[in-house]
Amino acid sequence: MKTDIEIAQAAEIWPISKVASQVGLTPAELEPYGYDKAKVVLDPAKADQAKLGKLILVTSINPTMAGEGKSTVTVGLADAMNQLAAKTMVALREPSMGPVMGMKGGATGGGMAQVVPMADINLHFTGDFHALTSAHNTLAALIDNSLQQGNPLNIDPRRIIWKRALDVNDRALRHIMIGLGGPTSGVPREDGFDITVASELMAILTLSHDLMDLKARIKRIVVAYNYDRQPVTVDNLGVAGALTVMLKDAIKPNLVQTLEHTPVLIHGGPFANIAQGTNSIKATKTALQLADYVVTEAGFGADLGGEKFLDFKVPLLGKTPDTIVIVATVRALKLNGGANKDQLKVEDLAALQAGLANLGQHLKSMQRYGVPVLVAVNRFTEDTDAELQLLTEYVSTKQTTAYPVTVWADGGAGAKNLAQAVIDSSQQVSDFQPLYDFSEPALDKLNKIVRDIYGGLGVELSSKAEKQLKTFAKFGWDRLPIIMAKTQYSLSDDPKLLGAPHDFKIHVREFVPKLGAGFLVAMTGTILTMPGLPKHPAAMDMDIDAEGKISGLS
Amino acid sequence: MKTDIEIAQAAEIWPISKVASQVGLTPAELEPYGYDKAKVVLDPAKADQAKLGKLILVTSINPTMAGEGKSTVTVGLADAMNQLAAKTMVALREPSMGPVMGMKGGATGGGMAQVVPMADINLHFTGDFHALTSAHNTLAALIDNSLQQGNPLNIDPRRIIWKRALDVNDRALRHIMIGLGGPTSGVPREDGFDITVASELMAILTLSHDLMDLKARIKRIVVAYNYDRQPVTVDNLGVAGALTVMLKDAIKPNLVQTLEHTPVLIHGGPFANIAQGTNSIKATKTALQLADYVVTEAGFGADLGGEKFLDFKVPLLGKTPDTIVIVATVRALKLNGGANKDQLKVEDLAALQAGLANLGQHLKSMQRYGVPVLVAVNRFTEDTDAELQLLTEYVSTKQTTAYPVTVWADGGAGAKNLAQAVIDSSQQVSDFQPLYDFSEPALDKLNKIVRDIYGGLGVELSSKAEKQLKTFAKFGWDRLPIIMAKTQYSLSDDPKLLGAPHDFKIHVREFVPKLGAGFLVAMTGTILTMPGLPKHPAAMDMDIDAEGKISGLS
Repeated sequence: MKTDIEIAQAAEIWPISKVASQVGLTPAELEPYGYDKAKVVLDPAKADQAKLGKLILVTSINPTMAGEGKSTVTVGLADAMNQLAAKTMVALREPSMGPVMGMKGGATGGGMAQVVPMADINLHFTGDFHALTSAHNTLAALIDNSLQQGNPLNIDPRRIIWKRALDVNDRALRHIMIGLGGPTSGVPREDGFDITVASELMAILTLSHDLMDLKARIKRIVVAYNYDRQPVTVDNLGVAGALTVMLKDAIKPNLVQTLEHTPVLIHGGPFANIAQGTNSIKATKTALQLADYVVTEAGFGADLGGEKFLDFKVPLLGKTPDTIVIVATVRALKLNGGANKDQLKVEDLAALQAGLANLGQHLKSMQRYGVPVLVAVNRFTEDTDAELQLLTEYVSTKQTTAYPVTVWADGGAGAKNLAQAVIDSSQQVSDFQPLYDFSEPALDKLNKIVRDIYGGLGVELSSKAEKQLKTFAKFGWDRLPIIMAKTQYSLSDDPKLLGAPHDFKIHVREFVPKLGAGFLVAMTGTILTMPGLPKHPAAMDMDIDAEGKISGLS
Repeated sequence: MKTDIEIAQAAEIWPISKVASQVGLTPAELEPYGYDKAKVVLDPAKADQAKLGKLILVTSINPTMAGEGKSTVTVGLADAMNQLAAKTMVALREPSMGPVMGMKGGATGGGMAQVVPMADINLHFTGDFHALTSAHNTLAALIDNSLQQGNPLNIDPRRIIWKRALDVNDRALRHIMIGLGGPTSGVPREDGFDITVASELMAILTLSHDLMDLKARIKRIVVAYNYDRQPVTVDNLGVAGALTVMLKDAIKPNLVQTLEHTPVLIHGGPFANIAQGTNSIKATKTALQLADYVVTEAGFGADLGGEKFLDFKVPLLGKTPDTIVIVATVRALKLNGGANKDQLKVEDLAALQAGLANLGQHLKSMQRYGVPVLVAVNRFTEDTDAELQLLTEYVSTKQTTAYPVTVWADGGAGAKNLAQAVIDSSQQVSDFQPLYDFSEPALDKLNKIVRDIYGGLGVELSSKAEKQLKTFAKFGWDRLPIIMAKTQYSLSDDPKLLGAPHDFKIHVREFVPKLGAGFLVAMTGTILTMPGLPKHPAAMDMDIDAEGKISGLS
């Protein structure tokens, strides 16, 4: 069986201008990066808000180590829709290179439902993340330089919250001491590195409508507190212009293609726990202006990425989804139902039955938004007919339908039924009901998320978190939208509570204000913002030959 | 008067394919990066070693804060040669973004003798430096991960010599403690960041003939010593393949243009103190295969970049220069002769006379290589006729000629006399005499450099350096070429000794073996490999408007 990269390398890749022409993009609207990648700079004349395409959100049950294949289904669904002559584009996030060198596969789908050029996208792509890393660390250096040069802003070195960032999985950089080596080498203080996708600049870049919006958001970033406990912003440092200059190209969406030449915009990659977890506003909007249907995805499960997409991104985007697709697999549901991870290939109707509650909670939480919700079952060859029947029947009792898809093996041809159902359901006039208004108090928002989305009892704040909300009220930060930083593995804040737990509260340890992004992160449990490498990093298996052919990248 | 960026923004920029066609490059040999930048992948059929162009090396007297304009002269000279119908290309280094945000101007020339697109080249360009930063830090993370995962290579954490790297001026990262925060966050140890251009990977990338040469060099990098004091290499870690994958595009030279549309390859940016200080072998070679004349430059003065170009790069390149041009300015010579830095605009024949000794030493050291040497005087409006006459007469007593140029104000038209002289002198059959053979003992090489190039008495080794040479002999590293890391401001190792000192010895503090690059760095004095930011960083003056127009970048 061919690996993903072997399939990608064997693919016939169209010149990017040919891919672009399918949705009416002219060469003047493209900035090519090689033969098969381009940045898109849309002619403003095409930006007719009244003629936006339909928006399809792909989300999933809680992820497990078994893998759900959300990106693969997203790609395969769009290919299938194009096969049905519905002019469809895909809008995805960019993969982070750190994990590619560590253990996970990239974020370009798999099998016959992939985006190409796979290796480039998983490596440096068009340099967006590198631009973010540079801007992030330039800001960090400017903060420390302000300390070094007489500290005119009276910054408290113990209260600098702007860390440094690299797109590398590097646990040794989580907690560091900097500024050692004497008076000419900085002011000693505690610091640490996050992975680049966790940078607030990543969240900001992917929320900005244009350069001026980007600059305004950068100005509002709170980087530290001074000795009077007042926030110090990028605007105070006077460097928002320079940081925006460094992101002038990164703000432009990137065009690539699926193996079936469906145009794909891949842009931005904020985490779905500590940030909004979806591709950029600019990319989604560009796709909506060019295509009749746009298939996009949100990170992790419907409880994290899905909720954030609907409650936070949709109001900023100004476009509600027309259909929501929840991806599930038999094996992941069995895991959620208590099956042994080494026994997933064996039929286990009892475990599946128990695990279906997880899908049930996500169906219920997504259906409350007033948008049609469908289920895509990403089929594995070991799934038995009895298992599929049990799953399909369960879904049919929830006012919707489950569509098995075989896109990994068959590409778009493996998702035609789902595609037709998505097209049909998207013709309905939807009645989108947001979960909360931005103006509601933080506690109300939190309780709504926990009760209506997670199926829990409500939220509990630590004394620190309670105190923070009082302080934030003084700064006017207490009515910001909430971004819940919670484990992706459970509906609760305990990664071991699988299935659909109910008698739980969510414990908010602290809030992290992100004023540039415009949200409050509610931290629950332990959320790592700098991953580590495993015992056998993927980097050890990669190679390249004299002709530039790569192996071992997945 | 327009600033450099205003001139660059007003320029008529040709599509890169049109620039390329002037030297016979076809679209299939270009990987475009936007409209005006491309990577060049030369058809091997064009690589006819027997038909290489003439190579012109531009170097200079010791740099001063007054600025010499070496890049500006390089660009203007090439434009002038094209005006004279000599098919000429330029080969330059890429600028480092850290200093751009700090205090220095970029590396794209100035006035009417510039390379465009100026802002892009000074910022992310085609991402080469970002790829290097990523590969460098991925290697660092893999080393610390090896410690974390049971330390199978028995690495001594106190003897890891592979630091981390960022393309940011950040003094607070020079000396740090990493791996804090408990057992899941790494092994605590001392570390530090260098600026990316100081990475051995930068030296390696710019020395590699192809991907396999690159991979072989990466394998040889010594990253640490084990508890038995034996070297640990990238090959031992098993990740040379992955690092080469990350540099697969960075190894390709980048094509841009001057304001007069002369094709320019800009590629690589190793420091001229701790590394070879010139653009890549691959770029120089590509240019030599395409053009009849290639004008290139080496970093800092003739004592640093010039010597390294001739003794280290030339043997690897397999092509000796046909003419050497030494750039001087009246104001810099006056500074070298003891003039007050606030009085440089005032005629001062005595200071100029005294400072000419600096030019004299560089003329003597370059003339010893057996290649024609010319002097370019980069004119400033305040230079008086008497000063120019004194300078010109001095040079005429040294078996060569000084050519005043006004390329900053006039572009190529300001260097026609110099251009004709360069073309004429390059027709001579040169008799290149290297300073040393690679096989000579390190001490002999060092003494030759100090005596014949710097005009000093010889070299003195610290006891550490002496001990190192003995150890290195065991590993077979003692016959590597020498890269002298010395202040650029003086011919000696004391930055305050201007002019042409003679009664000095060079003190080698320690050697730093760079096995991938294939040289021994001899450290003299204090060489910073991570710059700091000034009190008023250039970043504070940069801005961008809604249309993407940048201001304040220089």
